[in-house]
Amino acid sequence: MPEFLTLLPPDEARTALLSHLSQPIPDSEIIDVPSSLGRILAEDILAPHSLPDFQRSTVDGYAVRAGNTHGASDSLPAYLNLIGEVPMGDAPAFEIRSGQCALIHTGGMLPNGADAVVMLEYTQSVQKEEIELFRAVAEGENIIHVGEDVAQGQTIQFQGSLMRPAEIGGLMALGIVKVKVVRKPRVGLISTGDEVIDPSQSPRPGQVRDVNSFTLGALVEKSGGLAKLYGIVSDEFDALKNAAAKALSECDVVIITAGSSASARDRTADVIRSLGPPGVLVHGINTRPGKPTILGVCAGKAVIGLPGNPVSALVNGYLFVVPVIEKLLGALPLPRATVLARLTVNLSSQAGREDWWPVKLIVNQKSKVENLEVDPIFGKSNLIFTLAAANGLLRIHPDATGLSAGELVEVFLI
Amino acid sequence: MPEFLTLLPPDEARTALLSHLSQPIPDSEIIDVPSSLGRILAEDILAPHSLPDFQRSTVDGYAVRAGNTHGASDSLPAYLNLIGEVPMGDAPAFEIRSGQCALIHTGGMLPNGADAVVMLEYTQSVQKEEIELFRAVAEGENIIHVGEDVAQGQTIQFQGSLMRPAEIGGLMALGIVKVKVVRKPRVGLISTGDEVIDPSQSPRPGQVRDVNSFTLGALVEKSGGLAKLYGIVSDEFDALKNAAAKALSECDVVIITAGSSASARDRTADVIRSLGPPGVLVHGINTRPGKPTILGVCAGKAVIGLPGNPVSALVNGYLFVVPVIEKLLGALPLPRATVLARLTVNLSSQAGREDWWPVKLIVNQKSKVENLEVDPIFGKSNLIFTLAAANGLLRIHPDATGLSAGELVEVFLI
Repeated sequence: MPEFLTLLPPDEARTALLSHLSQPIPDSEIIDVPSSLGRILAEDILAPHSLPDFQRSTVDGYAVRAGNTHGASDSLPAYLNLIGEVPMGDAPAFEIRSGQCALIHTGGMLPNGADAVVMLEYTQSVQKEEIELFRAVAEGENIIHVGEDVAQGQTIQFQGSLMRPAEIGGLMALGIVKVKVVRKPRVGLISTGDEVIDPSQSPRPGQVRDVNSFTLGALVEKSGGLAKLYGIVSDEFDALKNAAAKALSECDVVIITAGSSASARDRTADVIRSLGPPGVLVHGINTRPGKPTILGVCAGKAVIGLPGNPVSALVNGYLFVVPVIEKLLGALPLPRATVLARLTVNLSSQAGREDWWPVKLIVNQKSKVENLEVDPIFGKSNLIFTLAAANGLLRIHPDATGLSAGELVEVFLI
Repeated sequence: MPEFLTLLPPDEARTALLSHLSQPIPDSEIIDVPSSLGRILAEDILAPHSLPDFQRSTVDGYAVRAGNTHGASDSLPAYLNLIGEVPMGDAPAFEIRSGQCALIHTGGMLPNGADAVVMLEYTQSVQKEEIELFRAVAEGENIIHVGEDVAQGQTIQFQGSLMRPAEIGGLMALGIVKVKVVRKPRVGLISTGDEVIDPSQSPRPGQVRDVNSFTLGALVEKSGGLAKLYGIVSDEFDALKNAAAKALSECDVVIITAGSSASARDRTADVIRSLGPPGVLVHGINTRPGKPTILGVCAGKAVIGLPGNPVSALVNGYLFVVPVIEKLLGALPLPRATVLARLTVNLSSQAGREDWWPVKLIVNQKSKVENLEVDPIFGKSNLIFTLAAANGLLRIHPDATGLSAGELVEVFLI
């Protein structure tokens, strides 16, 4: 019978796959900035003007010439002539000359002639038009300067940036209300297996409902892609080939679940080979779960065969599908969400193989990170509720033969 | 002038606010499971049947009676009579008796009489109807038992669970295609300030565009809420009170940005007091940025006044608005996404005050967590692009007077 001749380490397998994909996909779309949360920028964005584009006070107080306040203290106050109040949202109609000051509110526009603001709490109104100051200020104190946030023409966001709340607010601050984002990569999902039925149907003995289309579909959406379900296809070569060819023509990535092992009934590798060069790049990965995973490229697009076991499919979705989507989006790398926590039990592992354990992170009484505990979830890789009980994945490196209870380990949040 | 009389620590302030809110909001909606990613369950879910509900093979091989394989080895194989092949997706029409076996594929239904499966690689077909076995199997080996994933009637998901890919797949596996989720909390956002204009408009001198409605709106959406923008309201008491009362009647939470400091022009606290008891719970928090934050409750709903500075507003959105949304959703606690990394510089802090620094996590050559570095982003709290450059927030505890370069610190990813 056929065997997996060479099992590649997961990192090497992923690199082989990604090296064949172009970055990012060429299509983009223009959308409203407030609706762009989670999208990836398709272009660099330059500041159309400085921010702020006038000098603003950062406090409530009096706009002054700093030189007029030198030496001022509680025992020796300075006295300035109050000539007006800066209106909010308008340019002041007056100029500050030596010996003068004006009331100004946080965010107000500094009048010409003024170069600093004295905070209200260090002042006192002595007469209708005279203000006593108990503190000296330096030039520029309590002021935001023109362009201090961003200067006109400065690149404020780069292609590949993720739109988060701060980016959205920053663009709106500059009046940029539309933005060009990378189109969501379309990921076609095909489930195979004569025993698999749609979840809306009632299984007869021997039948099971499709799980992988939905776990992987949700993973795709969560990662910034668009899942397109092609349903359940029988185990026959022609049926699978036709479905895969259709998905390949309509999508940027195709994922086929089940049919990825090396046995005679498993057609996925043959189908990927038939769809065009280079075809199958990797068949068999030195990892658990997920050994029978197939990574291929046809017509410049990733075609991935994942094991039918729901846990294997989803874990390997994290390992291989998410990075493909990120590459197609051209997303700039961001730090991964991981936590360090103490393992509760010993875990053994086969040297040379990379293991990924579903784990549950448990918070101890104290909420410090050192008091998080990691409970591995023991269960066969075909039990989907193993993963529903998990909130993280724990990697055991290929060069380790296991991990010890009490060890501080890194957990990837899922 | 009015002063902040008592500044509460942020944790204490948050607890005071949350203690007045009911959990979760009573409304729910029924949606399709495949569209439920990121939603919170409004009910416990029981398994309508066992999963799997028939014994399945986990490998390709031969269904046998384990007793027939005892002692089998390379040098002393067992021989069994092949009586058929288990069809995929159907119950086998035969029974395995002593001395018999049947070909079975991964996921196939175990025939009656069989109690284990021998993997194909430990077998050989010697004659048309005779199979040679080189390995013994124990009863139950290479089989998933009925209910091994979940048993009928078992609670598979609890109210408050977050719907992730695994939960979605798990429910689909049981034929549960609709699910009751908590309605998204509606968060009304009001920006105040006579100098603030809509981002689609061109500012005159002294005017600035609204940022906080959009940063906070995105934060609300990201946290599972529904943002409802009430636009920009002038600094006058009546205008602000009317807008806030309207938002309070239509939303579950109201957020007013700017107007939260203690100066005469700032009306937010008075407006919150006017909207009903208990009104203002906390005015002034011992944190930087965000000291002027106001936490209130009116008509059983949180009404929060955030500073107008975009950085202060967003950081305090993370500290106070997100926990309110999580409480209203009734979300079960999940581990927070934090990373440990080394600080690049010394940071000083005032004892007694909790500081939150926007930081940039930088990955060193090696991708181990210990090789992440934390660069604080220095900038006034009114500079929105400070936060756009950050990918994390670093807390300096109130009892610390700073952090040292080289120290391992915990960063909250944003």
